Amino acid sequence: MNLRDWFARYIPLVESEMRDCLAVPDQVLDGYYGMLRYHLGWADENLAPTNINSGKRIRPMLCLLACQSARGDAMQAIPAAAGIELVHNFSLIHDDIEDNSPTRRGRTSLWALWGIPQAINAGDGLFAIAYLAIDRLRDRGAACERILDVRAIFDRTCLALTQGQYLDMLFESRLSTSVDEYMTMISGKTAGLISASAAVGATLAGSAAVVQYETFGRELGLAFQIQDDILGIWGDEALTGKSAESDIATKKKSLPVVYALGQSAKLRALYAAPEVDVPAAIAELEAVGAQRFAEQAARQHHEQALQALQASGASDDAGQALFELAESLLGRAA
Amino acid sequence: MNLRDWFARYIPLVESEMRDCLAVPDQVLDGYYGMLRYHLGWADENLAPTNINSGKRIRPMLCLLACQSARGDAMQAIPAAAGIELVHNFSLIHDDIEDNSPTRRGRTSLWALWGIPQAINAGDGLFAIAYLAIDRLRDRGAACERILDVRAIFDRTCLALTQGQYLDMLFESRLSTSVDEYMTMISGKTAGLISASAAVGATLAGSAAVVQYETFGRELGLAFQIQDDILGIWGDEALTGKSAESDIATKKKSLPVVYALGQSAKLRALYAAPEVDVPAAIAELEAVGAQRFAEQAARQHHEQALQALQASGASDDAGQALFELAESLLGRAA
Repeated sequence: MNLRDWFARYIPLVESEMRDCLAVPDQVLDGYYGMLRYHLGWADENLAPTNINSGKRIRPMLCLLACQSARGDAMQAIPAAAGIELVHNFSLIHDDIEDNSPTRRGRTSLWALWGIPQAINAGDGLFAIAYLAIDRLRDRGAACERILDVRAIFDRTCLALTQGQYLDMLFESRLSTSVDEYMTMISGKTAGLISASAAVGATLAGSAAVVQYETFGRELGLAFQIQDDILGIWGDEALTGKSAESDIATKKKSLPVVYALGQSAKLRALYAAPEVDVPAAIAELEAVGAQRFAEQAARQHHEQALQALQASGASDDAGQALFELAESLLGRAA
Repeated sequence: MNLRDWFARYIPLVESEMRDCLAVPDQVLDGYYGMLRYHLGWADENLAPTNINSGKRIRPMLCLLACQSARGDAMQAIPAAAGIELVHNFSLIHDDIEDNSPTRRGRTSLWALWGIPQAINAGDGLFAIAYLAIDRLRDRGAACERILDVRAIFDRTCLALTQGQYLDMLFESRLSTSVDEYMTMISGKTAGLISASAAVGATLAGSAAVVQYETFGRELGLAFQIQDDILGIWGDEALTGKSAESDIATKKKSLPVVYALGQSAKLRALYAAPEVDVPAAIAELEAVGAQRFAEQAARQHHEQALQALQASGASDDAGQALFELAESLLGRAA
């Protein structure tokens, strides 16, 4: 099986598990579950059933492939994979409020439709539902101790997510941020859940190489975020769907910017103005080598990810599919 | 030991456990933990250490007494008791945003000091920290299967909390709510965590009477909420700290109001006006017997709580202290 086959075979099972976890227990809660179904792409604004592409489900796939490649049974890990995707979506519901983003995946954000109070509460509910999804590992015969290990990984990851988000909001509100601080921030905010996805799969397989899988996921997540930062400034607008201007104009503290602000008084002056002069800022970023710096960082983390995957002893076609997933996530042909 | 002795002996241990769970892992996160320490009464607005009364810690006490009275070891249940208090506080942080409450326990709310985005995120963090607190049951030698049972109780309770909060916000936005719907709402929002506190303690003790403890907590929580509703209209302002007018003026859907709206077209007309005529509304509430109805409901749930506690076989002075706790929670001398 290649990566595409893995997606075709397993993601519908994860999707079905998620739907089971979101079954409406009482008619009075139709509207509550309706908001969550909307966010997940299963309902439209009027809560009528639909099926909209709502994310690539990369994290659950990573979890299942890690499990299988570590000589476990991917089928047993399905509830954990569902839990990971639900946690990811809980964090998106709250991120959209915190970042004041009116849209998500081309649709109106949950908070923009139902208001901030209901959206905060719906996100909290999805957080609890994600944990209930993980609890279903018991029905699949996973050992109690392993389930507790998996749950502890979730706990630490969710805490790290919020710590990363705290730093992200903090950094947006001040001019000076170091590259180290930036790396701490994305380690929690982006890389944490990707790392956890691999670690959870390996843990359920009873692998002795959980640390290597965890490192693989973390390094992959870091490379992915840095590449996203690069595309946010120098990417092809037709492919990324957003203009380079927006990341500069909103003074987003992406890696190239953080690096260049540390190098260039001229850029600091440009960013201190109420409105950034975008062409001048991009020229200065390039002059101080910020693009080259970020590309090198992305390449390094990508290489470290592949080394950790080699070291994990990931085997068979699931192991091969993990390599494919790593390549495709970074936009490279496998 | 009487109830006061139990509080004096165990609550400092719960407090210490909570503080351990909130130790700052990295200086860059000082501000993040600072917000949580502020909310918990351990820091002032400038994050300088302080120690402000921040809640009665009734839920953790209930958990420990349930454990001990079911012939378990209260010391082993300390991490669960800490987790319960942390979950309670996570929900308060979000409730204050959702209800637009600028104060909490006489101090400025977290969101009013640090803004809604950071407050949402800090609440999410405390949710994760609560689960990490529960995970510390492993260090106390609790059996894996029991810890999983405890965690599942938390999952279901947190979900029920958000469902209750959803209904509460929904009911505020519409005129007609039935008494049944109101009971469903407070079962999730108020009674859920009190019920869980007792159930978790009994579960850790390996009790065969978990259902009875759960019922005790739920009925106690229902009686407590209904009594709070009564005090919100007919209570002594000097004791409750809030005027009866506020609950009527804000059109709060408390039990007496929900009941009376179902009985009286006159009250419905009063509530349909942009501003409620408070004295007329109170007179109409009394005319349709809403106070008597609510008092009877509170008494019934209180009696059912005591019956369930009897049926649980709660023993020794811990069992006696649970009876005292039930009485004191309802403002009656033991």
